[in-house]
Amino acid sequence: VTGPFTVPTLHAAYAAGLAPEAVVDEVLGRLKEADDDGIFLYVESRASLLAQASALGPFDPAAKPLWGIPFAVKDNIDVGGRTTTAACPAYAYTAERDAFCVAALRAAGAILIGKTNLDQFATGLVGLRTPFPAPRNAVDPSLAPGGSSSGSAVAVARGIVAFALGTDTAGSGRVPAAYNNIVGLKPTLGAISSTGVVPACRSLDTVSVLALTVDDAYLAYRAAARPDPEDAYSRSIATGPLSGPPPSFRIGVPDAASREFFGDADQERSFLEALRLVETLGGDLVELDFAPFYETAQMLYEGPWVAERFAVLEDMLAAQPEAVHPVTREIIEKGRDMSAADLFRAIYRLKALEKATASATASLDALCVPTIPTFYTVDEIAADPVGTNARLGTYTNFVNLLDMCGIAVPTPLRADGRPGSITLLARAGRDAAIAALAREIHARSGTTLGATGASLPQAAPLSSGPAADEIELAVVG
Amino acid sequence: VTGPFTVPTLHAAYAAGLAPEAVVDEVLGRLKEADDDGIFLYVESRASLLAQASALGPFDPAAKPLWGIPFAVKDNIDVGGRTTTAACPAYAYTAERDAFCVAALRAAGAILIGKTNLDQFATGLVGLRTPFPAPRNAVDPSLAPGGSSSGSAVAVARGIVAFALGTDTAGSGRVPAAYNNIVGLKPTLGAISSTGVVPACRSLDTVSVLALTVDDAYLAYRAAARPDPEDAYSRSIATGPLSGPPPSFRIGVPDAASREFFGDADQERSFLEALRLVETLGGDLVELDFAPFYETAQMLYEGPWVAERFAVLEDMLAAQPEAVHPVTREIIEKGRDMSAADLFRAIYRLKALEKATASATASLDALCVPTIPTFYTVDEIAADPVGTNARLGTYTNFVNLLDMCGIAVPTPLRADGRPGSITLLARAGRDAAIAALAREIHARSGTTLGATGASLPQAAPLSSGPAADEIELAVVG
Repeated sequence: VTGPFTVPTLHAAYAAGLAPEAVVDEVLGRLKEADDDGIFLYVESRASLLAQASALGPFDPAAKPLWGIPFAVKDNIDVGGRTTTAACPAYAYTAERDAFCVAALRAAGAILIGKTNLDQFATGLVGLRTPFPAPRNAVDPSLAPGGSSSGSAVAVARGIVAFALGTDTAGSGRVPAAYNNIVGLKPTLGAISSTGVVPACRSLDTVSVLALTVDDAYLAYRAAARPDPEDAYSRSIATGPLSGPPPSFRIGVPDAASREFFGDADQERSFLEALRLVETLGGDLVELDFAPFYETAQMLYEGPWVAERFAVLEDMLAAQPEAVHPVTREIIEKGRDMSAADLFRAIYRLKALEKATASATASLDALCVPTIPTFYTVDEIAADPVGTNARLGTYTNFVNLLDMCGIAVPTPLRADGRPGSITLLARAGRDAAIAALAREIHARSGTTLGATGASLPQAAPLSSGPAADEIELAVVG
Repeated sequence: VTGPFTVPTLHAAYAAGLAPEAVVDEVLGRLKEADDDGIFLYVESRASLLAQASALGPFDPAAKPLWGIPFAVKDNIDVGGRTTTAACPAYAYTAERDAFCVAALRAAGAILIGKTNLDQFATGLVGLRTPFPAPRNAVDPSLAPGGSSSGSAVAVARGIVAFALGTDTAGSGRVPAAYNNIVGLKPTLGAISSTGVVPACRSLDTVSVLALTVDDAYLAYRAAARPDPEDAYSRSIATGPLSGPPPSFRIGVPDAASREFFGDADQERSFLEALRLVETLGGDLVELDFAPFYETAQMLYEGPWVAERFAVLEDMLAAQPEAVHPVTREIIEKGRDMSAADLFRAIYRLKALEKATASATASLDALCVPTIPTFYTVDEIAADPVGTNARLGTYTNFVNLLDMCGIAVPTPLRADGRPGSITLLARAGRDAAIAALAREIHARSGTTLGATGASLPQAAPLSSGPAADEIELAVVG
């Protein structure tokens, strides 16, 4: 196998007689070549990988749509018999069984390569809040890797695996996608079970998928999204095949006064260029005042939802506070003093914001925002770890609080060569609709895949899309 | 006008030429005859009532389905220009405008008579936690009136008004219905706007309707249930006309081990007799373990939802704690020490209980429970104000936490002459379906209307009901 791993190229090779054992060795070779101990916290042994490969049975992509596809999982997701650390050695435990979503992916034929680094307890958007060596950004080592799903994003961007699972509460599956020139699919809350996933904010967490292409991200999402009776937050979300986007559609965007790039003119130009691309696809842009979205976003780290993270770590912070990363500890300790009455008042405010934003977006098919407002380097983040992180969440923090799904997709490179990325957002259950649109945007972005240097493959044509008013029919259970 | 006020009898009289001014005088006469200063905290002047009557225009029940119908509202609901006390003089304020639901009822032609007594801040199920004289139970003055919508229930049971608004968070619209032999319709949360209503537990409160008949309760509910853009908790719930119940239906009931009557054998016999009545209507009884419902119920007063009540009263408890009823204060003060982390943990548990109960009831059309497990007298409650109150909520406290609608309806009198009452419960949006069934149960109960001594009128026949699998189609927005 040469070139990036994608499901179509691997399946074509398998169909032509390639053995999955050969892909295993190619994965291990690429891993070694990447020469970055910060990406994986654990890699399966070659023997274990070969055992997985030989257990697949004959190549059968109809029965197993991910047959022989190498993937990684963020190390806050359980793999049976392996250690889950959440990037906190003192927290580590050996998982008895695979997380529900990992089991689903394995059942679909995917081969688990290993577990990736992260911002400890998935608290952060930078990828540097880890006691282990941080992964290097795949496209520019002076930049942060982005987080919290840092290792998963870098593993995908470097072409070591075809896709990787992240998690996304505040943007942890989208921000690192933007930092590494890849796709980040953040499903509707509850679409993928959280059974076997270390909670960050239990009510707002979702497993996410990082991949080089929208098709691969969506394929993995489809395999992982299964109702789970054991997870009280699990929901049945439609995961039908993608169809082409409608000939015209309405896209909400932040109005000029609401756009925020913290002085990064390249990022602003990149976003405006991406919007022109959206328009060429038939998008009718509708400018919105983003004030209610930003007010919502602030609730996540400045309001009582921090107490939700505190609830997870209360015992550990009491027993061995020094075991928690100092920046993480500083943030989460604030949750200790928040009262239930504070939280009720915040819930009321959120309910009002939900209503206001739902009303403002009722006639829209989706929103389009920059995935990140700007890039920060490793050094800039070290100088101001909390402020830079907060700014990175500008366009991501509100999404789960408002029960929206999202997908971050690469757009044309910025003038300075850094990756461009926008995120499409829509209300719960419309994952397929925004993925279909993201696919078209990606196809026209003229960008390369992650840090592999390879061009985007020609994607297979889809059946023609439904009319704009038909794509409302996603099921939310 | 003689006999109980119901909409059909009053409208027949109006159609025959009766003037609404005559009804106003009849209301004032009945009020005086009741000789109970505890029912109303405020009554409109005769001049004001006559002005309302003359402003109605010609009799037109098609345009105004409540034309000339006298009603009362619990004094935690605003009436423009009048004082809202929530039964706490120190809390009192003059409302600038009618609550959204009061305005809707007036627009439908109803005549507002006055404002009724309640358990202070709608916290209680007994009707005795008020600094004013408590209303006397309408059927037996040794019994508590039931609460917290005590005055509204007694005003209806005595035939002073045709219907009255209550509120219902833990059972405040159902328990007093059972105590006074009337109907208590507790809508789906959000069906009736809470704009202009003093919050108890803001996320779990609903305005409710007390009436002598199901038809009248449902008619008032239909007029009051309107989406309100100002209320973040407002939802669009279908309020179509009632149709007859299906020929057969499945009703969940507590199994023998789950039934709890605290030693009241008469109440147990009454419930079992009511179940036989349900069976004669085509009901297929399905016994359920009620443990998850009871665990949910306990969260309301023993868990962090008490902090929701505390959030309302925090300032008052700091400034003038003695202004709050001592029993109410004792309960609500417990909310002070509950943390946001406690609340998140309780929310997770509730989510799991929601899932478990939804799964256990998925194939059922409704649940049927006793409205109250037993009766307590005024003296028994004085001796143990918290314990008796908690037991009264056995079959009501879980309902709003699980987002169910409910209707309490009289059943045949108990052997000792006290009223029988069952409550039908269903998931959000099925208000019409359970009202249709309650109507049939009431018609066959052989009971009298409230404390009026009058027989139940022959109800108008309805169009035949849909099949069992069609009554699923309630819309929840």
